[in-house]
Amino acid sequence: MKGLQKQVDDWTKDNGGYWKPHAILARLMEEVGELAREVNHKFGPKKKKSTEGEKELGDEMADIIFTLICLANSQKIDLDKYFAKMMQKLISRDKDRWKKK
Amino acid sequence: MKGLQKQVDDWTKDNGGYWKPHAILARLMEEVGELAREVNHKFGPKKKKSTEGEKELGDEMADIIFTLICLANSQKIDLDKYFAKMMQKLISRDKDRWKKK
Amino acid sequence: MKGLQKQVDDWTKDNGGYWKPHAILARLMEEVGELAREVNHKFGPKKKKSTEGEKELGDEMADIIFTLICLANSQKIDLDKYFAKMMQKLISRDKDRWKKK
Amino acid sequence: MKGLQKQVDDWTKDNGGYWKPHAILARLMEEVGELAREVNHKFGPKKKKSTEGEKELGDEMADIIFTLICLANSQKIDLDKYFAKMMQKLISRDKDRWKKK
Repeated sequence: MKGLQKQVDDWTKDNGGYWKPHAILARLMEEVGELAREVNHKFGPKKKKSTEGEKELGDEMADIIFTLICLANSQKIDLDKYFAKMMQKLISRDKDRWKKK
Repeated sequence: MKGLQKQVDDWTKDNGGYWKPHAILARLMEEVGELAREVNHKFGPKKKKSTEGEKELGDEMADIIFTLICLANSQKIDLDKYFAKMMQKLISRDKDRWKKK
Repeated sequence: MKGLQKQVDDWTKDNGGYWKPHAILARLMEEVGELAREVNHKFGPKKKKSTEGEKELGDEMADIIFTLICLANSQKIDLDKYFAKMMQKLISRDKDRWKKK
Repeated sequence: MKGLQKQVDDWTKDNGGYWKPHAILARLMEEVGELAREVNHKFGPKKKKSTEGEKELGDEMADIIFTLICLANSQKIDLDKYFAKMMQKLISRDKDRWKKK
């Protein structure tokens, strides 16, 4: 994710800097809400009104990742590091499970 | 909340019944996302575009309550009962804290 | 909801007052997340770990309503008024649909 | 993100495959809720109980990205493509704004 974090940082520097954590979090909730709407449109009961936008699932996901990167960058968090740590935990948990059998 | 649950039930009976729990939950997320947007508009850094709707915080809250009641009704959950139980727990927790001093 | 809003207000006065809107919103997200976990436990693929709490859907809903009432009270929002306005809009929309046929 | 999407895919193949979209979305809400709790702990009014876990913001973010990748993979969505499209849109919007002045 290092490349993506850099891209967002470059853009943000030219556009007023990062918001405060609670404001970015509220924005994240807004973006997750838009993804939820698309999931209901695509896999659920809600018909799309023709007046509503044409955004796809992938677009909403990109918005969520952008917002998350803003929060990470504003707190100097290296997402690759934490992602690797999480995958490592998942994998070693599976190995433990295997040994016990 | 009994009166509100009844109102929603009457309306829903005439309008196709309740969605499945996961679909109502996704709708709830969508409504919470809209509330988050209003909170950022009103108390945070995000300027409202003139093309965006005029909904107030109270309107978004009513939408959240409606969606929550749909989920409760679809599962025959009596919200008054659970609300009273929660308040009781809060209050008795405070009393315990007091006694210990 | 007037009675519920009063109960929450009485309790909050004795417990340090309301948080700022963004903080209450973050708490709301936390509670909605807990409801989402219960929905996945009850209707979805996720097995509950035995170490996890015993909260029911109704308990999580009560927590959401409590948090929402905190936000409403802190902004002097009368939830009954907005709920009535929303139901009125739903019902009149249905009538219009009917007339057009 | 291609590398991350591959890692998640490899792990998921050995662990029962992807859930349905609505279930992954509910999980995403749960993870966002946990991030919200950490934001309130770190920047807001909520004191952490000593019994609560030690997860950091970065850990919660990694969980959100993992869940999002599960949804993307289950729908064969190439996140790099959508992220690039979004950045492109942001940047060209800024250029337009500049030209108009």
